[in-house]
Amino acid sequence: MKNIYVTGHKNPDTDTICSAIAYANYLNKKSKKAIACRTGKINPETKFVLDYFKVKTPLLLSSAKDKKIVLVDHNEKTQAPNDIEKADVIEVIDHHKVSFGSKFPIFFHTEPLGATATIIAKKYCQNKISFSKKIAGLLLSAILSDTVVFRSPTTTPEDIKVAKTLAKIAKIKNIKEFGFEIKKSKSSLKGLKAKNIIFADFKDFKVGKFKFGIGQVELCGLEEINKKRQEVIIELEKSAKSKKYDLLLLVATDIIKTGSLFLFWEKGNYIEKAFSKKQKDNSVYLKGVMSRKKQVVPPLTKLFSKS
Amino acid sequence: MKNIYVTGHKNPDTDTICSAIAYANYLNKKSKKAIACRTGKINPETKFVLDYFKVKTPLLLSSAKDKKIVLVDHNEKTQAPNDIEKADVIEVIDHHKVSFGSKFPIFFHTEPLGATATIIAKKYCQNKISFSKKIAGLLLSAILSDTVVFRSPTTTPEDIKVAKTLAKIAKIKNIKEFGFEIKKSKSSLKGLKAKNIIFADFKDFKVGKFKFGIGQVELCGLEEINKKRQEVIIELEKSAKSKKYDLLLLVATDIIKTGSLFLFWEKGNYIEKAFSKKQKDNSVYLKGVMSRKKQVVPPLTKLFSKS
Repeated sequence: MKNIYVTGHKNPDTDTICSAIAYANYLNKKSKKAIACRTGKINPETKFVLDYFKVKTPLLLSSAKDKKIVLVDHNEKTQAPNDIEKADVIEVIDHHKVSFGSKFPIFFHTEPLGATATIIAKKYCQNKISFSKKIAGLLLSAILSDTVVFRSPTTTPEDIKVAKTLAKIAKIKNIKEFGFEIKKSKSSLKGLKAKNIIFADFKDFKVGKFKFGIGQVELCGLEEINKKRQEVIIELEKSAKSKKYDLLLLVATDIIKTGSLFLFWEKGNYIEKAFSKKQKDNSVYLKGVMSRKKQVVPPLTKLFSKS
Repeated sequence: MKNIYVTGHKNPDTDTICSAIAYANYLNKKSKKAIACRTGKINPETKFVLDYFKVKTPLLLSSAKDKKIVLVDHNEKTQAPNDIEKADVIEVIDHHKVSFGSKFPIFFHTEPLGATATIIAKKYCQNKISFSKKIAGLLLSAILSDTVVFRSPTTTPEDIKVAKTLAKIAKIKNIKEFGFEIKKSKSSLKGLKAKNIIFADFKDFKVGKFKFGIGQVELCGLEEINKKRQEVIIELEKSAKSKKYDLLLLVATDIIKTGSLFLFWEKGNYIEKAFSKKQKDNSVYLKGVMSRKKQVVPPLTKLFSKS
């Protein structure tokens, strides 16, 4: 039996890493040989979570070539592991929009939920597979991370319900307190260079002839990022020009006040058009915007698909 | 609450119609307002099944515009109801390759099983929703139809297992006998014109710049189709030229001997290249070929995507 490699997206976040670990474990319990993988360095938040539940960092997957692959938490080829075109993708589990095309019928499962971890937890329940304390803890952490402790508009009642069930098994008494503890571990910009801030949690998109990239950083307050504003914009321009982006955007999200500061470099007047708000000096603040997937990507996709 | 319209593909077959009825019923049981639909005339096989279980023909959906839509048994836009671009597609359940793109995260669920009906039956079980005798009968019929009474290579152990469970509830004692009874109701070509034979169960495909269409007819023996061979090829050429197809193919499948006679008109030498078999007078017989989805579409897609 050939190994199955379960992997999340590039620039891994907590949902991607924990979903890969939990789904590989699920496949093992169904007597399949599956290994959890990652496609890049884990971030400080994910490190905190793995350390907290005493779980090892998954294997680094440098190429998907000739491997049996399960994609979790993404289904865009640009975000998939290297050589994905030469892989045998047998399954996809995700909570993003459908972008994938397969040559054959495969298992493909997306749901509009706050985290891929919620879908995976539901699979355990539906198939009557029990959670260990560790797996429950990882899935709970992934939900809290991706829903920004239930503050993101991507949060659904199902995410909250599943998180409560998982918290009992993982023996986490105060869910929200634990959530903010996770979030804080990633929210300091101290000592970070502009490049690291932009590309730590970064996603590439292509719509028609337009190529754009969006980094996101979650912060408890915007003081730190405001100090680095100029440095970030200079770096955005430099990277955009060298990598031929039409738009390069950093979304700095204040998880306390629930809003986002956009810092960007663009070829045309895209941000103003997409978000109907006047920009100033390559920046704009958007109240209530928390979710890249639900509130940032769709207006840009709509704009670029019309252009 | 806005109505949800559950619809299968154009040129509806038994799996498409029965899956739409069963999934609308499933949504109703989950307290959602859902209506089963069809996008065209039902075929004699489906009529036999609906009459057998005393179920009404679903509503004809002439346009999907501004409607909440669930697509079952297809996810190609060319096979979807009219105005699908102006619809709000909220969910997809299918067993074909992934071709769909969504602008937002949605419920999207495909599995490589013999029938969409098998996936829907599993959903009933996983969510502990009971089947009525009628719904079980429809789902069973859809599985028997799409797997050609378990003879198609698309058949999986799961299809057979689910069919057995459904047969008990539907009080069908001899599953295979019932399956052939269903199949026979569609297998006569008596009185049919070439056009009706080609387009009764027909699907459109686009790969790169190539447009091709494949009709399939299931028969108990090839005598009848051999008599109409010339008439069919003339009609294929006429239709292909007027509708600008690069390839128009009729797959005449002998469900007793488990093989298919291909009759076709093509702009280039596609069939020989894709199936590595010498053609003669616009026809070729392929032993063991039963499934359009699994054995006919993939070699053509591969060829056209390389060209």
